[in-house]
Amino acid sequence: MTTQVSRPNRVAVLGLGAMGLPMATWLRGEFEVAGFDPMPERLELARAASIIPASTPAAAATDADVVVVAVRDRAQAEAALFGTEGAAGVMRAGAVVVLTSTIGPDAAIAIAQPLRDRGLLVVDAPISGGPVRAGNGDLLVVVGAGDDAMAVAKPVLDRLASSLILVGPRIGDGQLLKVINQLLAGVHIAAAAEAVALARGVGLDPATVINALTGGAAHSFMLADRGPRMVEVYERDPEVKSRVDIFVKDMGIVTDLARQAHVPTPLAAAAQQLYRQAEEAGLGARDDSSVVTMLSPRENG
Amino acid sequence: MTTQVSRPNRVAVLGLGAMGLPMATWLRGEFEVAGFDPMPERLELARAASIIPASTPAAAATDADVVVVAVRDRAQAEAALFGTEGAAGVMRAGAVVVLTSTIGPDAAIAIAQPLRDRGLLVVDAPISGGPVRAGNGDLLVVVGAGDDAMAVAKPVLDRLASSLILVGPRIGDGQLLKVINQLLAGVHIAAAAEAVALARGVGLDPATVINALTGGAAHSFMLADRGPRMVEVYERDPEVKSRVDIFVKDMGIVTDLARQAHVPTPLAAAAQQLYRQAEEAGLGARDDSSVVTMLSPRENG
Repeated sequence: MTTQVSRPNRVAVLGLGAMGLPMATWLRGEFEVAGFDPMPERLELARAASIIPASTPAAAATDADVVVVAVRDRAQAEAALFGTEGAAGVMRAGAVVVLTSTIGPDAAIAIAQPLRDRGLLVVDAPISGGPVRAGNGDLLVVVGAGDDAMAVAKPVLDRLASSLILVGPRIGDGQLLKVINQLLAGVHIAAAAEAVALARGVGLDPATVINALTGGAAHSFMLADRGPRMVEVYERDPEVKSRVDIFVKDMGIVTDLARQAHVPTPLAAAAQQLYRQAEEAGLGARDDSSVVTMLSPRENG
Repeated sequence: MTTQVSRPNRVAVLGLGAMGLPMATWLRGEFEVAGFDPMPERLELARAASIIPASTPAAAATDADVVVVAVRDRAQAEAALFGTEGAAGVMRAGAVVVLTSTIGPDAAIAIAQPLRDRGLLVVDAPISGGPVRAGNGDLLVVVGAGDDAMAVAKPVLDRLASSLILVGPRIGDGQLLKVINQLLAGVHIAAAAEAVALARGVGLDPATVINALTGGAAHSFMLADRGPRMVEVYERDPEVKSRVDIFVKDMGIVTDLARQAHVPTPLAAAAQQLYRQAEEAGLGARDDSSVVTMLSPRENG
């Protein structure tokens, strides 16, 4: 017997940050959306985007068919779901929690189990693409989920993703692919920083170098995307599109997973140190392109 | 007064290896081409491609307007130009030496000076793209050269390159950009190896992972190009398109230049160690995709 799955009507988004707010706004085009964030100014922005503002996760999640968790890390996800006024306590059986944060497979599994014990469904669905693509339904979403959870969540995931990849049926499968994505992304940003720093060091114009190498054997998405911002860093602080401390967190997840899997990852480890060095230098909240200044300092500090 | 520069008639190619032979063959479509290689079997292949085989560099270079040096490293370039029966001793004043090898700026400058002292012109023109593109005039060629040398060499460079970038007027300027190209290429191959090894280590299908990540934020040319060959390594030895020991040499040039320029390059240094480790494990002549086996061993050794 196949259970008839009805289309989600109400969606809650927990966390209205750089990714959560544009996702909630884009979902608003197709669903009724409630949003929670601890910062009043984010709730005001949500209200202005016709999102129902909620001052607790529970208030946002009440009557929701799908609860999208869009917070920064594991601790925030656990607080939003299981803390005081957490969402898990009010969700009805059969509703789905979609975990979009990059937290690693172990954390996703640890969070999913008590949700399932309450009769809730869970989709492990880390996202990639940045705020602009989050606001246009243009994200890469990599999913670990069973058929029952996917059946309920799919209209919401389809709205958010231009590329939706079902990695496997287990919670954590999406996280595994996202961790490998972050290994490459984090190493490629650091490599672009070395290229820009070396160009500066030998007296070549780094913008010319990036332009010459983009598209050839040295090409990466990050060289083309972050490279020009690394050049800009020497003139002004670039707009923060992705923070340094996100890669401090994510390269930690990468190297933890690699250690558990007995796989040496010397480049990911070197990149992790570079992001940590930048964070310790006070750049944690800056755009990640600013790591280039660890290798080639700004003259005015 | 502008000197009238006539179009080159005869071209010599010194070194008929993985890059030299396809370049010489492609040049043959537009010029008379003589070729030198120390290995008789390479000379036979040249003869079969209507290239005039020469058993010494001097024999190849006699009457040549442009001498293309396509050897592996600095020592081979010096031997071909200045050794017994070297090309420099027979070239007429005003002829051009085109250095296509990746040898670093210092070596290019050291080789150029005695050539200029003999009244020869020099173009620093390291190439990128691999054997297939070498045989189709589809190379990236990055050039350091003055106007006089470029005026003579340009028809030859135009024949070889789909992308010809004049970096600057000095010998070594082309090498500088090529070194930065190799920094990125070498790091990106090593990063792809870590991604494939980690995918294997956590039980994901690495081919599926590469396919999912190609084109997104984790994309690199090398992930798309070497990634599938890194998967193939576990079934059979892939065709050798670019040898491990080329990156042992090139990452040495990268880290030497970075040290001279006082630029820390922790990822390039980590990648250099990985290529050295692979060379010491006996993989020097294998395809560079085989470095993945340093991180995730083959079961049958």
